[in-house]
Amino acid sequence: MHASPLIARLALAGVISALQLTATAHAEDIKRVSSATSKSPISTTVVVPAGSRIVFLSGNLADVANPAAPAGSIEAYGNTHTQVISILKKFDKLLAAEGLTLADVVKVNVFMVGDPALGGKMDFAGLNAAYSDYFGSATQPNKPVRTALQVAALPMQGGLVEIEMTAAKAPAPAK
Amino acid sequence: MHASPLIARLALAGVISALQLTATAHAEDIKRVSSATSKSPISTTVVVPAGSRIVFLSGNLADVANPAAPAGSIEAYGNTHTQVISILKKFDKLLAAEGLTLADVVKVNVFMVGDPALGGKMDFAGLNAAYSDYFGSATQPNKPVRTALQVAALPMQGGLVEIEMTAAKAPAPAK
Amino acid sequence: MHASPLIARLALAGVISALQLTATAHAEDIKRVSSATSKSPISTTVVVPAGSRIVFLSGNLADVANPAAPAGSIEAYGNTHTQVISILKKFDKLLAAEGLTLADVVKVNVFMVGDPALGGKMDFAGLNAAYSDYFGSATQPNKPVRTALQVAALPMQGGLVEIEMTAAKAPAPAK
Repeated sequence: MHASPLIARLALAGVISALQLTATAHAEDIKRVSSATSKSPISTTVVVPAGSRIVFLSGNLADVANPAAPAGSIEAYGNTHTQVISILKKFDKLLAAEGLTLADVVKVNVFMVGDPALGGKMDFAGLNAAYSDYFGSATQPNKPVRTALQVAALPMQGGLVEIEMTAAKAPAPAK
Repeated sequence: MHASPLIARLALAGVISALQLTATAHAEDIKRVSSATSKSPISTTVVVPAGSRIVFLSGNLADVANPAAPAGSIEAYGNTHTQVISILKKFDKLLAAEGLTLADVVKVNVFMVGDPALGGKMDFAGLNAAYSDYFGSATQPNKPVRTALQVAALPMQGGLVEIEMTAAKAPAPAK
Repeated sequence: MHASPLIARLALAGVISALQLTATAHAEDIKRVSSATSKSPISTTVVVPAGSRIVFLSGNLADVANPAAPAGSIEAYGNTHTQVISILKKFDKLLAAEGLTLADVVKVNVFMVGDPALGGKMDFAGLNAAYSDYFGSATQPNKPVRTALQVAALPMQGGLVEIEMTAAKAPAPAK
């Protein structure tokens, strides 16, 4: 019966060691890197630690803002600023359904088309004006990485912008 | 020798607790969210649980469908419907090499160019007609998230569509 | 007191089994699949094992190469080859800040615009010539998956190419 306490102690040590490993893994949170001086609503780098849940979301277009305007017109959906707000509110609901918020978004891709009101150029300023209320703001400081550019066409007449997102949730911190 | 059974019991409790944690983590599968009433082959959201393997795949273009047609012509590769099928069959093989199928795909990005036969517009209907046989169908019900849009040009003359995918495999369920 | 050694042995068996599971999970590295005969700097598939850290990076544009050239001109940033090198060096620094290198990149998206010097076509050859020095080379053999295509416009006058990356780090191998 001499072996018993030793084995028990070894077993207990093993369990504690395993639990410490778990605790270490769980202590890491998502890390967002951006220039401290930059007013940009974009992180240069976002690190998603091991053990995170990753949530992919489809590209979304704006909802109709003005039902009185002709169907499929830019007037029906509004300018880029209006459309971006509509899209971000959609994502807010889609994320909420999974227990997440816009603060959990790690990566954003923005696809714009040329705005006839801007000589066929994408409205980058309109994007950032709306975007900065939802990312890197006083109420929601987290900034995902982002790529934003102009494509040839979107699959909705009157749509000026389509946005795609990926969110992530790090493991709960160890207690 | 009084301590021994207590330590052993504590150790066992620890192990059971650790195994239960593992079991909980392993019980979660990939979750695909889409509107129940929608005929769309797209999920709005796909949740990839912690502990999943993630498989990234390069953008793929279609193989030649008609070798008799001039090299680099749309006729050589076929219309968008034909090209999408060719591409999805390529992905099916690439995924199979990693022990996966199209049912494991979580995210799809589709980049189309304008089809001269459609006045320079992308063939969104052709995409969906082919796509719906492989995603959200009776034989393969899983729907990845997707973003599909029209770009200026693809790196292959005659190519109308390029598709990029990400797949994921959740941890095996606990026994 | 007969139960004690049995319980201890069961506990120990559980711990060993748990540690073996951990060891197995940790032994897997990132797997890059590409055609053995291909000179392409691209993997067809990259498998990121469970337990990996994933690092997302924003799209990056080139730095000014020739400050004497007019602001916002292609001459200021250089041709596609020059711009790609500038961008990859930026990513090298961003990755280094997280303890990573270009060898850890698993996925690359390249967005080019038409080069007036090439009749408005993207400079795919220029991209690959620069890219192949950093991916799939003698000094850095790892090849990420990649999608490269031509968009309508980038958010920087004179920019010919924007690149976005995702890196991943597999868990440290078991000792």
